[in-house]
Amino acid sequence: MANSKFEYVKSFEQPDFLLPNTWVVVRIDGRGFTKLCAKYAFEKPNDKRALDLMNAAARVVVTELPDITIAYGVSDEYSFVFHKSCTLFERRASKIVSTVVSTFTANYIHLWSTYFADTPLSPPLPSFDGRAVCYPTVMNLRDYMSWRQVDSDQPRPHQHLYNTTFWALIQLGGLDNREAEKLLAGTVSGDKNEILFSKFKLNYNRAGDYELVEPGTHSAAEAADALAEPEQQSKTQAEKDKKKRSKARVVIEHLDIIKDDFWDRRPWLLSNKPGKTPKEP
Amino acid sequence: MANSKFEYVKSFEQPDFLLPNTWVVVRIDGRGFTKLCAKYAFEKPNDKRALDLMNAAARVVVTELPDITIAYGVSDEYSFVFHKSCTLFERRASKIVSTVVSTFTANYIHLWSTYFADTPLSPPLPSFDGRAVCYPTVMNLRDYMSWRQVDSDQPRPHQHLYNTTFWALIQLGGLDNREAEKLLAGTVSGDKNEILFSKFKLNYNRAGDYELVEPGTHSAAEAADALAEPEQQSKTQAEKDKKKRSKARVVIEHLDIIKDDFWDRRPWLLSNKPGKTPKEP
Amino acid sequence: MANSKFEYVKSFEQPDFLLPNTWVVVRIDGRGFTKLCAKYAFEKPNDKRALDLMNAAARVVVTELPDITIAYGVSDEYSFVFHKSCTLFERRASKIVSTVVSTFTANYIHLWSTYFADTPLSPPLPSFDGRAVCYPTVMNLRDYMSWRQVDSDQPRPHQHLYNTTFWALIQLGGLDNREAEKLLAGTVSGDKNEILFSKFKLNYNRAGDYELVEPGTHSAAEAADALAEPEQQSKTQAEKDKKKRSKARVVIEHLDIIKDDFWDRRPWLLSNKPGKTPKEP
Amino acid sequence: MANSKFEYVKSFEQPDFLLPNTWVVVRIDGRGFTKLCAKYAFEKPNDKRALDLMNAAARVVVTELPDITIAYGVSDEYSFVFHKSCTLFERRASKIVSTVVSTFTANYIHLWSTYFADTPLSPPLPSFDGRAVCYPTVMNLRDYMSWRQVDSDQPRPHQHLYNTTFWALIQLGGLDNREAEKLLAGTVSGDKNEILFSKFKLNYNRAGDYELVEPGTHSAAEAADALAEPEQQSKTQAEKDKKKRSKARVVIEHLDIIKDDFWDRRPWLLSNKPGKTPKEP
Repeated sequence: MANSKFEYVKSFEQPDFLLPNTWVVVRIDGRGFTKLCAKYAFEKPNDKRALDLMNAAARVVVTELPDITIAYGVSDEYSFVFHKSCTLFERRASKIVSTVVSTFTANYIHLWSTYFADTPLSPPLPSFDGRAVCYPTVMNLRDYMSWRQVDSDQPRPHQHLYNTTFWALIQLGGLDNREAEKLLAGTVSGDKNEILFSKFKLNYNRAGDYELVEPGTHSAAEAADALAEPEQQSKTQAEKDKKKRSKARVVIEHLDIIKDDFWDRRPWLLSNKPGKTPKEP
Repeated sequence: MANSKFEYVKSFEQPDFLLPNTWVVVRIDGRGFTKLCAKYAFEKPNDKRALDLMNAAARVVVTELPDITIAYGVSDEYSFVFHKSCTLFERRASKIVSTVVSTFTANYIHLWSTYFADTPLSPPLPSFDGRAVCYPTVMNLRDYMSWRQVDSDQPRPHQHLYNTTFWALIQLGGLDNREAEKLLAGTVSGDKNEILFSKFKLNYNRAGDYELVEPGTHSAAEAADALAEPEQQSKTQAEKDKKKRSKARVVIEHLDIIKDDFWDRRPWLLSNKPGKTPKEP
Repeated sequence: MANSKFEYVKSFEQPDFLLPNTWVVVRIDGRGFTKLCAKYAFEKPNDKRALDLMNAAARVVVTELPDITIAYGVSDEYSFVFHKSCTLFERRASKIVSTVVSTFTANYIHLWSTYFADTPLSPPLPSFDGRAVCYPTVMNLRDYMSWRQVDSDQPRPHQHLYNTTFWALIQLGGLDNREAEKLLAGTVSGDKNEILFSKFKLNYNRAGDYELVEPGTHSAAEAADALAEPEQQSKTQAEKDKKKRSKARVVIEHLDIIKDDFWDRRPWLLSNKPGKTPKEP
Repeated sequence: MANSKFEYVKSFEQPDFLLPNTWVVVRIDGRGFTKLCAKYAFEKPNDKRALDLMNAAARVVVTELPDITIAYGVSDEYSFVFHKSCTLFERRASKIVSTVVSTFTANYIHLWSTYFADTPLSPPLPSFDGRAVCYPTVMNLRDYMSWRQVDSDQPRPHQHLYNTTFWALIQLGGLDNREAEKLLAGTVSGDKNEILFSKFKLNYNRAGDYELVEPGTHSAAEAADALAEPEQQSKTQAEKDKKKRSKARVVIEHLDIIKDDFWDRRPWLLSNKPGKTPKEP
């Protein structure tokens, strides 16, 4: 049979299974978005339409791949967290990463005109790269998400408030670059917050940049009947869970995820199963 | 410094460098395209608009990533071959795969309306997954490409000619399923070819399904000044090469790549460098 | 410089870091030990000298590599558990595995004459292969160890007691194969236990085959001053810990590790750090 | 069945297949040999007994693992080259590396007393670590071996001849450190060669440090009937080949492998199969 002569090449494919029982984070990043921001004249420092488009594309990814527990975006990157009990695609890294990246990209392109009605896309089109990382514990996962939040501020600890005020003065206040620079010279944080509020009624909220997409079904009620051990979960129950989650309302929130409050109000993130109180190790 | 507290999570990222000096094939596959074909009423067995759209998207990928030596498509899959001397993204597998998948997807979605003017896209959108495989020798690479060609015919060795004729009778000849079946019962290959040509002026050409996208600059003239060893190539020369290839006209051809002829006419595929006569081992 | 011309080959070495914050198990297996048992006339079913030699070699490995938390042997295999906070050799898999295998082998060969004084070694010499596996949680680790214990009994659930009694009758009781077979025909477990005890004062103890080597310093006292987070442990403290453990008395025990009792008495196995009460997730 | 409850842990073992159709080099390194040299008072710069012991152990490895094409040693390291068609242990990296390391270690310990009759071993025993690297082409493999030869000379280009002469003066000539230093001050290579030969009848041969172990059956005669493609080789022929190689006389040579001469006289190293003239690209 002719096929057998060539089929040996299949043996060159190397397995890339992600370690079982670990949280899988797929992070995608906009490719060359600095150029893109310039090309489509994104507003500085954060263009609302651009962020809304990111969130809308992420929302579809979370809806179509119900193994995702939570998703979290900062500027032109988005992190999708797969539950540690997830067995999607036998946990093959390239299959998971490429599916997330492709689904996200498809919806980003498709929804572009909804958010940028007057700015048609032209080549080279926006695109994203991605990678998968495994985190063994919830604490590692939480630190990962804090890292993304902190990292997006670095290396400019006080820079962000400065930028927000600077661009507000220019875009909302009609100043030019030089005037805005002059006005801000020597100010401290309190001064800038004052300017933002008194001049533009803006309440500077650091957490405002971080977007969170998560399935909306989690409740204390669910916690009671959640199963203790993913491995022992019956097929039927798993099927039910999957359906339930795929129907879940996906909500988008703006939050500071470094604080305990975020985690305290989401006990299912610490559990072996969404909706369950934590019990491990 | 706040950052250092979380930054340790970066150490969980596992390196995934592809072995140097091997041909890298990134193969992408349409996800759930059987459903998609039904949803958008693709013509059987091969919808010309769908294939043209695949080729158009692949053409952009080849143009934007000049490290690609050749690309090759069959139905809803496409294989992109990176030259063995390629150092794109330090040969990180997930970065290369996700970039190809994302660029392809973006253009597939963006160009959809060009090829399906009357059939607007609706969710769930078309998407693709992908993987990277390394092949140490040109012979392995050639066998890989032959495998894809043969595989797309399997498990139906003589089925393809049957299908082509069957659907021609229905779509072009106005027969219904039962009539077409009856007419073809007991026919041999010669009979079917005769039907195709006499009734529809169709010349059955097995190779017609396989699409090939390749940069068009290769010439005997280039062979002379090509460098012998990728490792020793100067930065300047590498820069020049890259520019030249990125400007190259990308051509799409329909070919049988299993035959020697295909390879004999592309000596650069056997060389260490596009445009060079082979010399290794 | 001549070196630079060849040094590029170093780039072909692929990184093989084991995922951080996971328990690393290195399991080694005797190669071709069925032949070896025959060659050196090991007593059936378990030769005490052979097991003692395995334990003695394992003891040296645990002493020389203080990152090992516990070691566990069954017949011709041994599992060495590295603490999840271990950073030995930057957690490079091949370095860790090869070091364990080599140290074990060296001592097995060197100590052979101590346990087999009358049976000199001759080629081919005993050797071992090995592999490393990561387990994210203590529960996974515990299940791994239970698996090894259970696996070594399979596929012979009741076979082991039979074998023990059979060989006791022959080796200690002077019966020949046929007589032993006859005597055991139709007996149940209770009968065999009775034979073992009444005839040979042997107390059949299933757990007797499983050997455990562990550092002996763990105590409730230590629990108090143990540090909470491995990442935040100061260099000095880490240095002290290492010294303390390297001096620890290594004890060998025969145990059933599937039962809770084993784990309840070793709280440090559930902790982030030897000697600490568990706190995760 | 009790087994099934724990068996899931097997799924945590990650596959580690080495890319097919590449040359596999397993390099082993003595662990802490600087200390070891001091402890057992190895002669400087190269102790003949130590090198002979390395070679003797390597010879056994090559004999017991006939998939090894050539082996090559420098001071306390040894590289074993597996043919690119090798399928030993399904090319699992950890299995191949650990087997080589363990077999080498076992024989090093066992043969110690043959080469160091008056110096019994004491803990900590000599041990070795190891790693596997894939090389796609013979040229990469050749460059690897050259790299090891060059690397062992670095960073002391002219140092080696100096050392050899220095220690010859002390050990054979009875000079003390200061006298030897004085005598060599200002000498050039020619002077030192002269001293070595005139005083001690030593012929300084740079290549003398590099040890090579290879199966001895290769001949022009064999080239004729060697098979062209490993993949198409019949089982029977493969069986025969294996037997023949396992019986092959293993020879140890001292050579400079950077020069073409070494490779020109070993055409089988360039072929797809030992004993065959090269054909690939």
